[in-house]
Amino acid sequence: MTQLHLQALPDFPLVSPGDDIAALIVASLSAAEARLEPGDVLVVAQKIISKAENRYAYLNEVEPSEEAKALAAKCDKDPRQMEWVLRESREVLRQVPGVVIVEHRLGYVHANAGIDRSNILSDEDNPRLLLLPEDPDDSARRLRADLQALTSVAPYIIINDSAGRAWRNGTMGFALGTAGFAPVENRIGQTDLYGRPLEVTEVAVADELAAAASFLMGQADEAAPVVLLRGAKLSEADCGSQSLIRDRQRDLFR
Amino acid sequence: MTQLHLQALPDFPLVSPGDDIAALIVASLSAAEARLEPGDVLVVAQKIISKAENRYAYLNEVEPSEEAKALAAKCDKDPRQMEWVLRESREVLRQVPGVVIVEHRLGYVHANAGIDRSNILSDEDNPRLLLLPEDPDDSARRLRADLQALTSVAPYIIINDSAGRAWRNGTMGFALGTAGFAPVENRIGQTDLYGRPLEVTEVAVADELAAAASFLMGQADEAAPVVLLRGAKLSEADCGSQSLIRDRQRDLFR
Repeated sequence: MTQLHLQALPDFPLVSPGDDIAALIVASLSAAEARLEPGDVLVVAQKIISKAENRYAYLNEVEPSEEAKALAAKCDKDPRQMEWVLRESREVLRQVPGVVIVEHRLGYVHANAGIDRSNILSDEDNPRLLLLPEDPDDSARRLRADLQALTSVAPYIIINDSAGRAWRNGTMGFALGTAGFAPVENRIGQTDLYGRPLEVTEVAVADELAAAASFLMGQADEAAPVVLLRGAKLSEADCGSQSLIRDRQRDLFR
Repeated sequence: MTQLHLQALPDFPLVSPGDDIAALIVASLSAAEARLEPGDVLVVAQKIISKAENRYAYLNEVEPSEEAKALAAKCDKDPRQMEWVLRESREVLRQVPGVVIVEHRLGYVHANAGIDRSNILSDEDNPRLLLLPEDPDDSARRLRADLQALTSVAPYIIINDSAGRAWRNGTMGFALGTAGFAPVENRIGQTDLYGRPLEVTEVAVADELAAAASFLMGQADEAAPVVLLRGAKLSEADCGSQSLIRDRQRDLFR
């Protein structure tokens, strides 16, 4: 029977810089009387990876550039926050009051370069932001290796985040970083029920699973930053998430 | 424990015009020794809804307009297919060789207006296409009512389809029509772990669940056009999917 099961790991602790996420996951699995099985996927919220990697950025520690000041005025944002947004970005794509959408230095199109102020304990005298991980694919790869060392099973990893989209309302989970599997499945060569070649051949499986886990994370009454996903038959591959990002020359909506 | 379970209904038959999808679902559930429970979500592939509603469009039964001919030449498509695309659309947004992206008459931004040639048995002398349902929200509402009449349980319904996206590679499932619940969840007024108001407040839960089910449909070895999804705590609401569609005046990426 074709099925998929998702479970938010219970009682996951708040994460601080330097914490060992793999060890926290193993402890949480153990508390839930669960263990990793081959083929399992772990979806991990970007936020706890960023916290463990100490990706905090302090507003009082930057001097906004002229560009940041001008953009902040247009978008009605704090110029110091905008300075951090620009430092994390390659290009500003859209700017209207309340919204700045950029191409992040790693290629994601993301409001505020994915920089977040929610769920961050901040000192009011020195408020801080949380940046995306330095290299989410590398974070995912290391987490996979750490978990394999602890449990002998190397799960597929997705680091997920949520973002707005063109054309449609509401945010949706997507895969910020991956490890161990092909994030875009190529179905070229497969045929439909009647033997015709499939017209659409590339499926963003990592984003579909990130969205599923993101839904579940949002449903939990308490913080649920890790979801165990069982039943997905993914194609093992030694690659990260770069194939999910459309080449800007081939993007019709910039 | 916060969890979500998805199961593709087994042995689902091929669907023909006039078929009663609700009755087919009840039969398939029964064969799987499953039954609907309050709170269940059924995700149903657009393709079988369109087939049951006889939304076939025949290439030989249209005379392409001059606009269709010109667009077909630019996009390297069949002018008769392009005629159907235009009849189903409000506006052509992008046109390059091999690709035409339109705003469908119901507001979706969709390549080829969602018109498909895969999984359709076609007579080579009179090839045919399959259009989207006339009104997917209405289809979803009727399916929900039919299932309630047959089982006494009114499941939440998502009719899903797959589409490409701006910025990212690969297609992804999304909610084409919904019934029974709020497809965009508004978390305004909720606070984060530290009591700060959430910055991002609208989540496209219907699209997240559609993506999850779409992943599972794509994994099945045989046709699996219906997925039973259990564990989602959705907000019951007497509305369809229109709130998922961004108003064109507020869309920065057109």
